[in-house]
Amino acid sequence: MQSKTPSESRTIMTDMVLPSETNPLNNLFGGELLARMDRAASIAARRHSRRITVTASVNHVAFNRSVPLGSVVTVEAKISRTFRTSMEVYIDVWMEDRFSGESVKANEAIYTFVAVDDTGKPTEVPPVVPETELEIERFEGALRRKQLSLVLAGKMKPSEATELRALFVKD
Amino acid sequence: MQSKTPSESRTIMTDMVLPSETNPLNNLFGGELLARMDRAASIAARRHSRRITVTASVNHVAFNRSVPLGSVVTVEAKISRTFRTSMEVYIDVWMEDRFSGESVKANEAIYTFVAVDDTGKPTEVPPVVPETELEIERFEGALRRKQLSLVLAGKMKPSEATELRALFVKD
Amino acid sequence: MQSKTPSESRTIMTDMVLPSETNPLNNLFGGELLARMDRAASIAARRHSRRITVTASVNHVAFNRSVPLGSVVTVEAKISRTFRTSMEVYIDVWMEDRFSGESVKANEAIYTFVAVDDTGKPTEVPPVVPETELEIERFEGALRRKQLSLVLAGKMKPSEATELRALFVKD
Amino acid sequence: MQSKTPSESRTIMTDMVLPSETNPLNNLFGGELLARMDRAASIAARRHSRRITVTASVNHVAFNRSVPLGSVVTVEAKISRTFRTSMEVYIDVWMEDRFSGESVKANEAIYTFVAVDDTGKPTEVPPVVPETELEIERFEGALRRKQLSLVLAGKMKPSEATELRALFVKD
Amino acid sequence: MQSKTPSESRTIMTDMVLPSETNPLNNLFGGELLARMDRAASIAARRHSRRITVTASVNHVAFNRSVPLGSVVTVEAKISRTFRTSMEVYIDVWMEDRFSGESVKANEAIYTFVAVDDTGKPTEVPPVVPETELEIERFEGALRRKQLSLVLAGKMKPSEATELRALFVKD
Amino acid sequence: MQSKTPSESRTIMTDMVLPSETNPLNNLFGGELLARMDRAASIAARRHSRRITVTASVNHVAFNRSVPLGSVVTVEAKISRTFRTSMEVYIDVWMEDRFSGESVKANEAIYTFVAVDDTGKPTEVPPVVPETELEIERFEGALRRKQLSLVLAGKMKPSEATELRALFVKD
Repeated sequence: MQSKTPSESRTIMTDMVLPSETNPLNNLFGGELLARMDRAASIAARRHSRRITVTASVNHVAFNRSVPLGSVVTVEAKISRTFRTSMEVYIDVWMEDRFSGESVKANEAIYTFVAVDDTGKPTEVPPVVPETELEIERFEGALRRKQLSLVLAGKMKPSEATELRALFVKD
Repeated sequence: MQSKTPSESRTIMTDMVLPSETNPLNNLFGGELLARMDRAASIAARRHSRRITVTASVNHVAFNRSVPLGSVVTVEAKISRTFRTSMEVYIDVWMEDRFSGESVKANEAIYTFVAVDDTGKPTEVPPVVPETELEIERFEGALRRKQLSLVLAGKMKPSEATELRALFVKD
Repeated sequence: MQSKTPSESRTIMTDMVLPSETNPLNNLFGGELLARMDRAASIAARRHSRRITVTASVNHVAFNRSVPLGSVVTVEAKISRTFRTSMEVYIDVWMEDRFSGESVKANEAIYTFVAVDDTGKPTEVPPVVPETELEIERFEGALRRKQLSLVLAGKMKPSEATELRALFVKD
Repeated sequence: MQSKTPSESRTIMTDMVLPSETNPLNNLFGGELLARMDRAASIAARRHSRRITVTASVNHVAFNRSVPLGSVVTVEAKISRTFRTSMEVYIDVWMEDRFSGESVKANEAIYTFVAVDDTGKPTEVPPVVPETELEIERFEGALRRKQLSLVLAGKMKPSEATELRALFVKD
Repeated sequence: MQSKTPSESRTIMTDMVLPSETNPLNNLFGGELLARMDRAASIAARRHSRRITVTASVNHVAFNRSVPLGSVVTVEAKISRTFRTSMEVYIDVWMEDRFSGESVKANEAIYTFVAVDDTGKPTEVPPVVPETELEIERFEGALRRKQLSLVLAGKMKPSEATELRALFVKD
Repeated sequence: MQSKTPSESRTIMTDMVLPSETNPLNNLFGGELLARMDRAASIAARRHSRRITVTASVNHVAFNRSVPLGSVVTVEAKISRTFRTSMEVYIDVWMEDRFSGESVKANEAIYTFVAVDDTGKPTEVPPVVPETELEIERFEGALRRKQLSLVLAGKMKPSEATELRALFVKD
């Protein structure tokens, strides 16, 4: 299968924060942002695989900044690494202040999607070849994240998670 | 501050899967489920703290089962542990088949919320006292998850995450 | 057909009042509450019958309390009585104040659903056996309400509505 | 206060049935129709009173015909009678088949609204003067319906509901 | 094919402006109004043709008045002229102030729809016979607008657009 | 005021076509696309002006291609020219087939926005300096479109619309 670069799947979704999406402090609900990121990441995964794609997991997501009503939010998603039938998608979120136009990083998240055929059966996806320094760093971190995911799901013993274990143990 | 039990914050949100929430395979979008879980967990956190609550982070979430159009989905959220101003909320998701009425576990997720005052400043929350065996198990796992969260955010050194480190190293 | 208890169909739908659902006084639109109650009652009817269910009628509903933006609303629906292919569903609505956490009864409503097969033809449903005092009281009132419904629709003569007539005439 | 005719408050809301509003049989949810009727009736009440209006009650509503996906639905609302601060609104619903263009009566409903000032306090509304035969018939039935509503709410003794009682007792 | 009058396709869609449809100045988004006009015009075109109808083009639309949150907006659509398989639909928009009840013209727009069969192939539509003075004026202007549309799309040479050319050149 | 390039206001909004946005042929409603384009163009205008922006007009829009359910739609908006307080925004729409991944041009549209201060009063915007060949061509066409708009609104005599008149008359 012909490999692709992360930029071939790059998906940009810019939209406003509307009143129906905000909490009592007039900030974007965390759940709304999770849903927007899922849609953008799902499109990136489809662009990479040219298949129907379904969300397999969401990595740990931290909400460090609140996003006020009326902000412009840009969600950018790119494939960071693939494993046979699954794709890790890295998502960066920026927000622009309504008046100053200043743009700041609001969030980062990592979702995993699986490519499936019309019956829902997982199918192989093309490999990804990272190009920029950041893409290479994210590509390399993906294996550690996959091990963490397997350990948390009880599908891998911590002792076998060699990449992950190295974080905690300096032999 | 007067402590509370997990069942005092228990929140149940039962609803159908509507056509506008499904992907091309006619299953519920992962992002929609993330948003429903956020709303239910946010209500549980508000019930525990009697404060405005904002999503602080989402733990690793795996989507093991697809939820077809027309299913009835029940999201149940309860506080599992608190830390000064934050609350870990455990979420269990069940789905019922439209015809058989059979109910199966579809998902589990863990969100963290912070209680804030009207200006958005974090404020203290009551402690939680687990009662059932499952509640105690989740209470105890919470510290390990908090350390993992801090390590992933680069706010704690892996060597200081004693609870977490024990998973990987048998001294 | 195996009878069921009201608690077997009990359906709880807890959710917030969002800005897009409020009128110019910042209270929940009556129509939105009617729609939420219909969804919850429809799920209760499906749980009882394990069939597709369609709304047949809505009893008189009074809106005694306004439900402000930001409230948490809990809709609870249970089968109160069945008639061959139809089910009366009793719905209780509570709201919690955002800050005090105090929960008050906001509404009561009664919907009737019919169970249908895939072609839309009405099909028989299991009988219901009330357990609590309140369930028994609601079960007994159901016949009077059914007669009222038939009289209002011109399908029964007032003189034949014996249960209902007894309210107005002490012979 | 200057009286008005029912046609001065006449409100027409024509719209399609969209996929997100339908049940598993591809017919309009009862709850969606209840919400549309509430919006149309609320506008009619506002046109009559030139005040903010809030839903006070919904009369018995029967759903005799299912409304399939893709139908054009017309909701027409007119004030049928007023009582000091409240207005009874009569609602007629027609649906047009997508292909034949044939229009049939799908529903009838009666909602009651109260006019309020900016603080939510009920305020007086102009009287209504019915013109057509149908408007006169609906005007006259309104008193009986108001008594039924008060009896059901436990605010009037059946023996005092003279208009209503006459239905059941031929003295 | 039997001709029809514009009033046979007349479609009225009255609804409120809700918080989720407003911009930071609390006025209706232009895009929301464009979408409402499209739905009303599409129903008018369907009523005229008794066919599925798809939007072919939107004429120049000017937004001269802002429509504040809480206004009641009435969109009225009527067929103004037909060309073999297409229909020009004229749309008038009024808004009513929430308190004074005063109704003012807020907008005018012209959409063109094509009637299609179940496979999406354009099919012939009945001719329209204008009745009122305004309907006749709009019927006559339609040819000039069609030419303008063809010139702008590069499908007609300006020199062949005789109706349109006459606006600019007095020979 | 410091001029800007079109690429500084470039706004990309990529999203899926969901079931609730489609007509009976399972294609995106024209009105939904008009609303998406309005949101994207409004963000581009805000990025250029750093002001609140309101839709002033929509140029002639032709819908040449239907956009099926499940397509990925990309809306791209850039400022093409400014006039003291108004901005012409050029919008290009592409759609990608769900399976082949092939991307085709689906639409082009031109909206005009006005920048306003907090009281809704129009305020001056920075000039735009086109860079690419296409941007220059669009910049130059904008004057002709502005004249057409003024002539259609009856605010300019056809004989004064020199740019536009040249299309029809070779002196």
